[in-house]
Amino acid sequence: MKEKGITGRAISYVADKEGIYRDEIARRISEGKAVILKHGDKYLGIGEGLRTKINANIGTSPDIADIKFEMKKLKAACDCGADAVMDLSTGGNVKKILKYIVGRSPVPVGTVPIYHAAIQSIEEKGALQKMDPEKIFEVIESHAETGVSFTTLHCGITLGTLERLRRNPRKCMVVSRGGAFLISWMIANGKENPLYESFDRVLEIARKYGLVLSLGDGMRPGGLIDATDAAQIDELLTLGELTKRAWAAGVQVIIEGPGHIPINEIAANVMLQKKICHGAPFYVLGPLVTDIAPGYDHIVAAIGGALAGLNGADFLCYVTPSEHLALPGVEEVAEGTIASRIAAHAADIGKGVKGASDWDYRMDAARTKRDWKTQRKLSVNPAKFDKLHLETASGINDVCTMCGKYCAIKTVEEYLKTKVVL
Amino acid sequence: MKEKGITGRAISYVADKEGIYRDEIARRISEGKAVILKHGDKYLGIGEGLRTKINANIGTSPDIADIKFEMKKLKAACDCGADAVMDLSTGGNVKKILKYIVGRSPVPVGTVPIYHAAIQSIEEKGALQKMDPEKIFEVIESHAETGVSFTTLHCGITLGTLERLRRNPRKCMVVSRGGAFLISWMIANGKENPLYESFDRVLEIARKYGLVLSLGDGMRPGGLIDATDAAQIDELLTLGELTKRAWAAGVQVIIEGPGHIPINEIAANVMLQKKICHGAPFYVLGPLVTDIAPGYDHIVAAIGGALAGLNGADFLCYVTPSEHLALPGVEEVAEGTIASRIAAHAADIGKGVKGASDWDYRMDAARTKRDWKTQRKLSVNPAKFDKLHLETASGINDVCTMCGKYCAIKTVEEYLKTKVVL
Repeated sequence: MKEKGITGRAISYVADKEGIYRDEIARRISEGKAVILKHGDKYLGIGEGLRTKINANIGTSPDIADIKFEMKKLKAACDCGADAVMDLSTGGNVKKILKYIVGRSPVPVGTVPIYHAAIQSIEEKGALQKMDPEKIFEVIESHAETGVSFTTLHCGITLGTLERLRRNPRKCMVVSRGGAFLISWMIANGKENPLYESFDRVLEIARKYGLVLSLGDGMRPGGLIDATDAAQIDELLTLGELTKRAWAAGVQVIIEGPGHIPINEIAANVMLQKKICHGAPFYVLGPLVTDIAPGYDHIVAAIGGALAGLNGADFLCYVTPSEHLALPGVEEVAEGTIASRIAAHAADIGKGVKGASDWDYRMDAARTKRDWKTQRKLSVNPAKFDKLHLETASGINDVCTMCGKYCAIKTVEEYLKTKVVL
Repeated sequence: MKEKGITGRAISYVADKEGIYRDEIARRISEGKAVILKHGDKYLGIGEGLRTKINANIGTSPDIADIKFEMKKLKAACDCGADAVMDLSTGGNVKKILKYIVGRSPVPVGTVPIYHAAIQSIEEKGALQKMDPEKIFEVIESHAETGVSFTTLHCGITLGTLERLRRNPRKCMVVSRGGAFLISWMIANGKENPLYESFDRVLEIARKYGLVLSLGDGMRPGGLIDATDAAQIDELLTLGELTKRAWAAGVQVIIEGPGHIPINEIAANVMLQKKICHGAPFYVLGPLVTDIAPGYDHIVAAIGGALAGLNGADFLCYVTPSEHLALPGVEEVAEGTIASRIAAHAADIGKGVKGASDWDYRMDAARTKRDWKTQRKLSVNPAKFDKLHLETASGINDVCTMCGKYCAIKTVEEYLKTKVVL
């Protein structure tokens, strides 16, 4: 693994966490089918054959910028099982906030450097179009120095992609914030995307700091109406080419994907990414299988995420109930993280990830015995378990208020005691 | 459609609601691939090619029996988009409660008659095992007279099924309450299931009242550990035989299915039901794709329901956050109904149900224009939309607090105004 800067310690750490052989991890890293994020003395494996991981986005916005609020969201996400967080701050002192989050997060932290480059340019020069490309590389290096584990970089948007978009118009033009910054700059200056044009500089920085590249999907569709369109796929083709260049330079890569995809197109989207990007891990946002449920997009994303995971997606970016409506609060971060965790686990059962079903089987055994203490302990969120179970206790000890004395499990069990026929 | 007691008015009503041709509805009814539930002067079509419908279970339990509470749950379910409700009451004056619900429900009402037969036998004779089979048929007829549109009857559990279960043990024996009552009676008396043995009497009553039979799955697995096992499939085989007998007698049939199914077994379960039951509509409970999320089983069921619907399930029974913990309250009924509705709609987009995507495309157009009024109107629950959007308004009018002044859609739109390159 030397060529990707991965230590034996990292391999052992991940092998131990996943409960699979070191060699298996090493082979997947070497093939590019898995990556290892480093965060202090901890490691996180993402990719084929590993448990499906989930990411929670936190961070300020121009309207809501409060570091204490961000710390609460970070805690909520990690308490609910986030494997990684991304600091997407765009309001307040973004540099300070990032340092604060990286220093306190128990899990790897990711960023989108173009946000800070764009914001600083707007603040310093009055307009996004005046952004100096140098600024982007400065910010990437500064994030890496701060201890960021992975960065989203929209290296796959090219002038060619914009021409493809022109020839294949869509309804919701661009909904990726980072993509929007870059595309706007490209339109205003009539120039190529610096992240594509100077991809070697990106690789140099990544290589130097062991930064994992998350190649962003700036052209991801913004609604089902644009799903799996020419612009989206055109960008993916470029990402496939960049993946090979990154691997050749000893840099680890994951690929970001949509977004809004109808349920019947999810399997094909995952297959296409795996094929075009040579098996690199797939990091999906949702995906969202309908656009009509703002306020419930965590549920919509759980449907899409579970199916994407089943079909091979390796890393799910959560979506909160606030998506399309507002910056999420602490409660929405928690709800989004749990929904995403459920989706990832359901997928892991389906794709036979080692040990995934055992958790469920232990729950099944506890339910059969009406062992509520163990059921509580095994539940994804014991606090919610208590809220619903304890607040409506049945008059009978070992059953719940759903069926009370007519509990199906108990009824059959008692009859089986009197006559052994089964 | 005369042979199934379906009027031309019913066909026209459903064709109009679904926006498809009368002949198409008529053909599907005639083939048994769709059914029409009658409720007063309203009709509800369920089956192939029609919008996926959702059912919300309400009803009392021995611990919680309050008719006003049930009315609130009925209203919550219908307000959130339930296409049908089932009154599963087992506490209080169940006969009176059912009459009350049927009289006030805007949507078709279903029941599980064995509940009332068992409860009355326990109350009158002191034990379930003393239940007179006559009682079951009395209750079915009484429910039909009350105006119930469909009834769950576990006609497919036979002594043969129990023998199959004996030879293929499972972890969570029986979790169907109706199934548990019948199986316990069968074990105690060493006799065949009256609903199977006297299926012709069931058909006679159904035929007389135009009652749609929902053939129950008493052997549905109670956890992932037992999914798709011999007992479950044995019962399904019998249901396939009974389907043909019902059709021959001019009775409409839907088939109930699990329950707990890992995500990778859902497609096969739907295929198997459609094949074995000759295309009869499939009514699934969830399905639940993991057992570790009590408190969030509405999300777990949304994942399973969307995938089942995509693969051909026609009718989704909701699951609330209270499942496995308690009788649901009003809020849980609302949350469960919305989650199920999202799943059904996501499935309808995927299977190309007429007009399904149009709803999403209108939302996409409103989002592109940042037309919040239309987005609110189109959202599945405008109250939740308001709660998240209005309570955190951005300083800028047409964007939300997620990105504020850095709104991706707006950024690109403004640059496109200055230079027309796309």
